[in-house]
Amino acid sequence: MSAPRLDDVRQPSPVGLHRVLEPTGVLPQAAWRLDADPQVHADEVRVRVERLNLDAASFRQLWDRHGGDGGAVRAEVAGIIATRGKMHNPVTGSGGMLVGTVEEVGPASRLGLAPADRIATLVSLTLTPLVVTDGLARWDGRSEQVPCDGHAILFGRSIAAHLPRDLPTELALAVMDVCGAPALTHRVVAKYVAQGRPPTVAVIGGAGKSGSLALAAARRAGAARTIAVVPLPTERDLLVPTGLADVVALADARDPVSLSEAVASAGGPADVTVVCVDVPGCEHGAILATADLGTVVFFSMATSFATAALGAEGLAADVTLMIGNGYAAGHADFALDVLRTSPGARTIFETRLASHVGAVHPPR
Amino acid sequence: MSAPRLDDVRQPSPVGLHRVLEPTGVLPQAAWRLDADPQVHADEVRVRVERLNLDAASFRQLWDRHGGDGGAVRAEVAGIIATRGKMHNPVTGSGGMLVGTVEEVGPASRLGLAPADRIATLVSLTLTPLVVTDGLARWDGRSEQVPCDGHAILFGRSIAAHLPRDLPTELALAVMDVCGAPALTHRVVAKYVAQGRPPTVAVIGGAGKSGSLALAAARRAGAARTIAVVPLPTERDLLVPTGLADVVALADARDPVSLSEAVASAGGPADVTVVCVDVPGCEHGAILATADLGTVVFFSMATSFATAALGAEGLAADVTLMIGNGYAAGHADFALDVLRTSPGARTIFETRLASHVGAVHPPR
Repeated sequence: MSAPRLDDVRQPSPVGLHRVLEPTGVLPQAAWRLDADPQVHADEVRVRVERLNLDAASFRQLWDRHGGDGGAVRAEVAGIIATRGKMHNPVTGSGGMLVGTVEEVGPASRLGLAPADRIATLVSLTLTPLVVTDGLARWDGRSEQVPCDGHAILFGRSIAAHLPRDLPTELALAVMDVCGAPALTHRVVAKYVAQGRPPTVAVIGGAGKSGSLALAAARRAGAARTIAVVPLPTERDLLVPTGLADVVALADARDPVSLSEAVASAGGPADVTVVCVDVPGCEHGAILATADLGTVVFFSMATSFATAALGAEGLAADVTLMIGNGYAAGHADFALDVLRTSPGARTIFETRLASHVGAVHPPR
Repeated sequence: MSAPRLDDVRQPSPVGLHRVLEPTGVLPQAAWRLDADPQVHADEVRVRVERLNLDAASFRQLWDRHGGDGGAVRAEVAGIIATRGKMHNPVTGSGGMLVGTVEEVGPASRLGLAPADRIATLVSLTLTPLVVTDGLARWDGRSEQVPCDGHAILFGRSIAAHLPRDLPTELALAVMDVCGAPALTHRVVAKYVAQGRPPTVAVIGGAGKSGSLALAAARRAGAARTIAVVPLPTERDLLVPTGLADVVALADARDPVSLSEAVASAGGPADVTVVCVDVPGCEHGAILATADLGTVVFFSMATSFATAALGAEGLAADVTLMIGNGYAAGHADFALDVLRTSPGARTIFETRLASHVGAVHPPR
């Protein structure tokens, strides 16, 4: 590869096209290699990196591949970043996010950041130019949390959130990780309310992180009734005392008949069904649990597009099917605010974070 | 398997659970084997089958597997139907639709059908109980069109459309096959119009069957501007004279930069982008071509849920992402009406149907 294109490009692209080295013409996420040069273009921001949070699927793959050898995991992550100019696991296709401090802000940046701001990036590491300068020396390769030194580049059109001073960093990051769900749930529910018909909302996987925030957001938006569905009595016992849902029902979301009957018994069918469980096969149940002209929002990455589309057709279900977009304007601040004002959601998050403290990934 | 469950079930399920023989408890589409007993339950309808239209992917797989031996293809299709009680290709997972005449209507059916009505079923053959009685003797195994004799069962909650008398059957079936697209496009566009902001609508794949109807439906709903994107000059030359779109742009939908620039040059970005091309990799381009707070409707079965969700997040695109539901109340009649009132759409359909006349599937 000869001279990078940086010198050739007068107008940086807001989505970072000018940082793509190979293959040319694709978006940064699709690129094999990015230019992570520290010099910022007019609309870019450079961040001094403090820590990477690897995507769980990516870390698991690396861990398994190296049989739990932390040193080998560390070497491979360092190698990926050096080779690709980004932390983009070539096997899982996933990345993660990072925490750092703003170092330089281009004059045309509109991200609302200033030097010394402590931030988390909410766009994937798979599209974020990154250089690591300490060889990951402070990381033992045994957890997703990667302390490191280096820099990253944010494009004109990117997403970064200020880390709040009033919440522990771990808690704030966990909230930001799922902040698309409460924002979109609130928006969808509010539309029904604005039309004078406050909806019944069912959240499948209501005891999880995205699920608990979705429940709180639905209530804040004016839902007439909130129903949480969870698969296990332990999750029910965690959720019921929080008061996040009007009713908590037990059902396996992969069993359409069981799921729809559980929602019906809890006061359904739902006008809005929000799927927050990351297991495959929940599409038919979610559709069947939803009323005619209702809406299903799928936040699970295990959702199959074709199963959802053909399932609705096969069930003659006239429902709106939405792909849960992880981004909405102001989503991080909104999610943090939901957490601050919902003791129930905060309990769920703190319980889940505590259960991971000290967890060491077993080789398997 | 012992006595079927029919005798045990007093209340037939509107989605056909009582017809599932194995495994029990799943929906008919997920079942391995259905009970195709001709006796109808209270809310069921029995149809005398005249012809099956196999799904193109299914037929292609069978054709390839048997190296173009029509007799072997016929034997396998007959075998699948006899074994499973439905035409559900176990390799492709797809089915098709059927044409026939209503024979008996249960007293509690609400499908609006009467004996002697000539209809097409719009739910997949993968969930339709079916018996073939003539051994497919009139079919040469060389096309998706399978003339046959037998019966099929429609459930309480199903979809069937009357075949119109004023249109050739082939044309009507081709329209019904994609009738979800114009119905949902119309609904989405009409919402923008009702809010006082008639949208710019881009249809990716505007020269196809679903695309041409989506264009006509968007204009009927009050779109301010319609943009069609097609990949080939031949498609542009087909589409331009029909007047279906205000602008026809050329671009490869798999190239996000090229697609978004084409839409922008044609008067975009689009408030509503409708994806009607069945090739993988169009998600990022469609998102990038869409304005902030706009809507992308994916009708392509080649859409990847994760690519769309993560793509929007990576591009910091605050857009609504919709899975194109193949069903909406009244969708078949609406699509036929769009065709009747849009000479341009009719031209597209007739041209495409004519190009398939006499086409013999080459073995490959």
